[in-house]
Amino acid sequence: MSHNIAIIGASGYTGAELIRLIATHPSFKIKALAANSKAGLPLAKVFPHLRHLDLPDLVTWEQIDFDQIDLCFCALPHKTSQEVISKLPKSVKIVDLSADFRLRDPEAYEKWYGNPHSAVEMQGEAVYGLTEFYRDEIAKARLVAGTGCNAATGQFILRPLIADQVIDLDEIILDLQCGVSGAGRSLKENLLHAELSEGSNAYAVGGTHRHLGEFDQEFSAIAGREVKIQFTPHLGPFNRGILATCYVKGELAEVEASLRKAYAEEPFVEVLEAGETPSTHHVRGSNFCHIGVVADRLPGRVIVVAALDNLTKGSSGQALQNANLMLGEEETAGLMLAPCFP
Amino acid sequence: MSHNIAIIGASGYTGAELIRLIATHPSFKIKALAANSKAGLPLAKVFPHLRHLDLPDLVTWEQIDFDQIDLCFCALPHKTSQEVISKLPKSVKIVDLSADFRLRDPEAYEKWYGNPHSAVEMQGEAVYGLTEFYRDEIAKARLVAGTGCNAATGQFILRPLIADQVIDLDEIILDLQCGVSGAGRSLKENLLHAELSEGSNAYAVGGTHRHLGEFDQEFSAIAGREVKIQFTPHLGPFNRGILATCYVKGELAEVEASLRKAYAEEPFVEVLEAGETPSTHHVRGSNFCHIGVVADRLPGRVIVVAALDNLTKGSSGQALQNANLMLGEEETAGLMLAPCFP
Amino acid sequence: MSHNIAIIGASGYTGAELIRLIATHPSFKIKALAANSKAGLPLAKVFPHLRHLDLPDLVTWEQIDFDQIDLCFCALPHKTSQEVISKLPKSVKIVDLSADFRLRDPEAYEKWYGNPHSAVEMQGEAVYGLTEFYRDEIAKARLVAGTGCNAATGQFILRPLIADQVIDLDEIILDLQCGVSGAGRSLKENLLHAELSEGSNAYAVGGTHRHLGEFDQEFSAIAGREVKIQFTPHLGPFNRGILATCYVKGELAEVEASLRKAYAEEPFVEVLEAGETPSTHHVRGSNFCHIGVVADRLPGRVIVVAALDNLTKGSSGQALQNANLMLGEEETAGLMLAPCFP
Amino acid sequence: MSHNIAIIGASGYTGAELIRLIATHPSFKIKALAANSKAGLPLAKVFPHLRHLDLPDLVTWEQIDFDQIDLCFCALPHKTSQEVISKLPKSVKIVDLSADFRLRDPEAYEKWYGNPHSAVEMQGEAVYGLTEFYRDEIAKARLVAGTGCNAATGQFILRPLIADQVIDLDEIILDLQCGVSGAGRSLKENLLHAELSEGSNAYAVGGTHRHLGEFDQEFSAIAGREVKIQFTPHLGPFNRGILATCYVKGELAEVEASLRKAYAEEPFVEVLEAGETPSTHHVRGSNFCHIGVVADRLPGRVIVVAALDNLTKGSSGQALQNANLMLGEEETAGLMLAPCFP
Repeated sequence: MSHNIAIIGASGYTGAELIRLIATHPSFKIKALAANSKAGLPLAKVFPHLRHLDLPDLVTWEQIDFDQIDLCFCALPHKTSQEVISKLPKSVKIVDLSADFRLRDPEAYEKWYGNPHSAVEMQGEAVYGLTEFYRDEIAKARLVAGTGCNAATGQFILRPLIADQVIDLDEIILDLQCGVSGAGRSLKENLLHAELSEGSNAYAVGGTHRHLGEFDQEFSAIAGREVKIQFTPHLGPFNRGILATCYVKGELAEVEASLRKAYAEEPFVEVLEAGETPSTHHVRGSNFCHIGVVADRLPGRVIVVAALDNLTKGSSGQALQNANLMLGEEETAGLMLAPCFP
Repeated sequence: MSHNIAIIGASGYTGAELIRLIATHPSFKIKALAANSKAGLPLAKVFPHLRHLDLPDLVTWEQIDFDQIDLCFCALPHKTSQEVISKLPKSVKIVDLSADFRLRDPEAYEKWYGNPHSAVEMQGEAVYGLTEFYRDEIAKARLVAGTGCNAATGQFILRPLIADQVIDLDEIILDLQCGVSGAGRSLKENLLHAELSEGSNAYAVGGTHRHLGEFDQEFSAIAGREVKIQFTPHLGPFNRGILATCYVKGELAEVEASLRKAYAEEPFVEVLEAGETPSTHHVRGSNFCHIGVVADRLPGRVIVVAALDNLTKGSSGQALQNANLMLGEEETAGLMLAPCFP
Repeated sequence: MSHNIAIIGASGYTGAELIRLIATHPSFKIKALAANSKAGLPLAKVFPHLRHLDLPDLVTWEQIDFDQIDLCFCALPHKTSQEVISKLPKSVKIVDLSADFRLRDPEAYEKWYGNPHSAVEMQGEAVYGLTEFYRDEIAKARLVAGTGCNAATGQFILRPLIADQVIDLDEIILDLQCGVSGAGRSLKENLLHAELSEGSNAYAVGGTHRHLGEFDQEFSAIAGREVKIQFTPHLGPFNRGILATCYVKGELAEVEASLRKAYAEEPFVEVLEAGETPSTHHVRGSNFCHIGVVADRLPGRVIVVAALDNLTKGSSGQALQNANLMLGEEETAGLMLAPCFP
Repeated sequence: MSHNIAIIGASGYTGAELIRLIATHPSFKIKALAANSKAGLPLAKVFPHLRHLDLPDLVTWEQIDFDQIDLCFCALPHKTSQEVISKLPKSVKIVDLSADFRLRDPEAYEKWYGNPHSAVEMQGEAVYGLTEFYRDEIAKARLVAGTGCNAATGQFILRPLIADQVIDLDEIILDLQCGVSGAGRSLKENLLHAELSEGSNAYAVGGTHRHLGEFDQEFSAIAGREVKIQFTPHLGPFNRGILATCYVKGELAEVEASLRKAYAEEPFVEVLEAGETPSTHHVRGSNFCHIGVVADRLPGRVIVVAALDNLTKGSSGQALQNANLMLGEEETAGLMLAPCFP
């Protein structure tokens, strides 16, 4: 059965990634592409790599005839997203890739994002989009909130460990490198090739990155008590990929068992053989997440390293995985493409 | 109908790219993977990015049961390739990705590759694998010789122009940049990240690159007279992609018309809108070739720029396209994946 | 003897490069740094890599007390530069790094830059800043116009060959790759890391790049007749460096002899051994230009390849070399630092 | 007063970096360059970026006339280094850049490096080369052991904090990214551009990196008790630079004060303004180390980030700084060049 799809915010990287993935999807058909600042242009003018596809021209989101649309991806900036989504007809299923519906608590939203939420009534309705852990709710949801890309990576490491009570909840450090596409197609000096290539730097040091809002919400809910981790992201000179190195206190055997159990049946998350650690190179362009577990030389300490592609598993691939569930399709449809290496 | 596939030389980049592409092919099934120096290993030890696939372990090519195999890709180094291929059963169709059967003339082979050909009798049998121009012969062939990646790029620009007699045959300059995967997974000092990143250099300057053997053979055959072009490759700090900038003497309208006519019906080769020129970024990881045509400010001179991915359209994608023809499948099967950008 | 230096436009890459070089200069002292959009900031806020230097804070150029200044570098965008320079006191020597005084003919300026020149009277006074060829005039000049970085590279190859009449003036093709710092610290989508890394593209194809104005002016003057070359620049995924591959018609012996003669005594321009070609990696961060000469397989055709660092020899290093001459210092002062490799 | 210098191991990256730095040194003269595998070649054949320098050809180290040499840098691989150094005349001062004399305890050496030490008698004599903390001993030493590049970075962060007892000694995590030149000019698959660019991975996870031997030795000595840290290095797609992110337990004010006090008078180590964190981009090619200190949102936890260039401050620049002290020269001689950005 074929489903009609709209994408709002099609001129950004997550929009383009959605289109790339849907291009090989067996039953999704893109009916409308919106990007208000580029409305009227063929998509190939904005993303020449997609020129071979037979796609509708860009329109404003207001021009979309939602009667025709089964599901709409919103790949807009946060704040804009909530304003648009609150105006969409209730008959349309929505996967939002922004931060706007990730935090269920309006106060938490305002704390991390700096503005009051303008669609508070929908915050409760939204299901958090980490597929592997919210599968049933997502299948029934009308509105799914895609997770932060860093937040997804950290949760793939930590959710099972917290749920299984195999690590010290007060001693979790997540150190992470993110590729530059995570910052979007935005004209900022620090995203220029000349500023970014050939080096590395930390940012949002000290616990100020917004994805901490998601970690706090989710980990505390799992643990049944407040859990606050330390989290330092770094910006690396590569386009795609997140590598998260997580320091926990626990026993290797328990940590490894917890992760293996959690992902034994998962098509996209793989726990590597003992001693192996992953590389972002080996997940680039794909929906896979690789996880490695190693004991530290210090007893009682374990290091877990996870790699995924921020644009795919961290964002648009996850969104498509959720959309498959919401529309009753095979969860992996359109998502089994192999990583692009080298 | 399903076809059983073997790949010999599965531990190199073109081997890995074949596997990546075949992974989504509707009717090809990989039955055997050979890499004599890595025999016994699971492929995931050699290419961790392919670990999600259910693939046979690596064996030596001698261990393959060719009775089970419909078509075999050979992704071996030249010279080794001819030795192996000459020993394969005649019942197996072969797509060779090496240089060994590209040149029909044994003397030309020896001149460019430095050793006498050890399977001269098969040189005549082999069909040159530039799909768009040898489609019918390829469909009937038992042995197809994949082209050089640079050679493919240059021919996409020049074959129609020579055939249509719209350019001066004695004044052709092909200046080209190639990504580093074109040199294979070989341990050479100049391929190290520290030596290659953040800069550029020419190599094989002065008409010594081996792909000139293919240009000479093909262009002279088309023209019915000897055609020798100037060709300078450069090694660029990127992994995938060839950008060829070709300087010809002719009239824009005729050059453009010749190219548009040649590729009007082609699924993978696209001539851009007037004034546009391509970028390797926009074909990365895909089987597409983009061509742009621009008049120089000097009357009677035209610049044609082409971009493709050396590992895909320049090598393994082309090989799969040929295999599709040889096995009676849809030519585009497994090859329509969109470029991976950014 | 010590000289007081001002730099206007200190917040761009060429400004920063001037400061980097002057930091080790034995007799130049930076007295004022202007950047009107950043006035009031310490330089370290704009360029943290220069934080170890004891430098004046940024001011507006109008705040500079020019009575104290011996020589002023102007690293402003074109058009702004002419407006500012025309208001500076005549007592101050000026090295302009913009395009504003490179073209002596006001019509040529307007043709290539799109606006009428607002300081036409100074265009005649300005000396073209290609040190190796205008040394005597530069030493006596008040206003020196730094060359385009691509224009410098092409001229290092072609000026001797044209002057010595060893090549066909109607058959010159200059194909060139430029690193991204050549585009300045400007917020443009195509300069983002995600858009530029891992690939290559041509731009200004067909003879539309502004540096052709310089080539036309200089080469025609040397030849005593109109000379128009073909020139295609490419943007490569590296920060510093220009690699120019030039196709000429002539005899190798004559071409090589012409270049060797021209640069035999030059401290910064080196003609490599026969058969060698240069790499931008080996001049990065330095004021050196390496030139290689190779005969093509086609008789009567020669390829000359040149490499330099666009920010140093192509811009700020050249500017400092000129300033040394204008102030009676050793021409090489502050400029002998070795390239930074790897 | 002029000093005659020899470099053994001149064909590696640290050798080349020594030559680059010494090229602008006011009183050091390179008299001999040894590289046994390349003996007989001019250095320009091995490092074309140094071709402008007037240098002796490469010889074997046995061919060096040490009567002429005041100080010899050994930039050999570990194990080879101890064998060579034990045979050098006692009259020659030596700065060793290998790992061979960093660990004073022969058992520790054997544990981390896998072979028994063959010059145990010299292990006691060698002074650990972290200039800022061993200045007086270095000035009097005959043999100085350069530190590991990662080890230097971690110690710049942690030595003052341990000495001042402002952090919990059992809760130190050092997470670090290192550029690829840290692995030397070695032909390993994982150092190829195609394998390394566009991604990141951890290595030596779990406390197996050899530089931990230095951390254990030094930190335990300072603390007067055993101190063992957790340390995870990552390999990043850049050539130069180390970025270390260190998680400690302590109070921001005390941590910051400790670092500011330690480096107040240091010419090369700078503690950034409160809230600022460093970037490797801003120390590239220089001898500077930038350190930033930030409080985590969790009380009692602090993050310290340090950046330096592994080839310069982490290796050859440090070696030159030590040689300056050993020969009675200004400590900063030849080392004040500004970082090369962009």
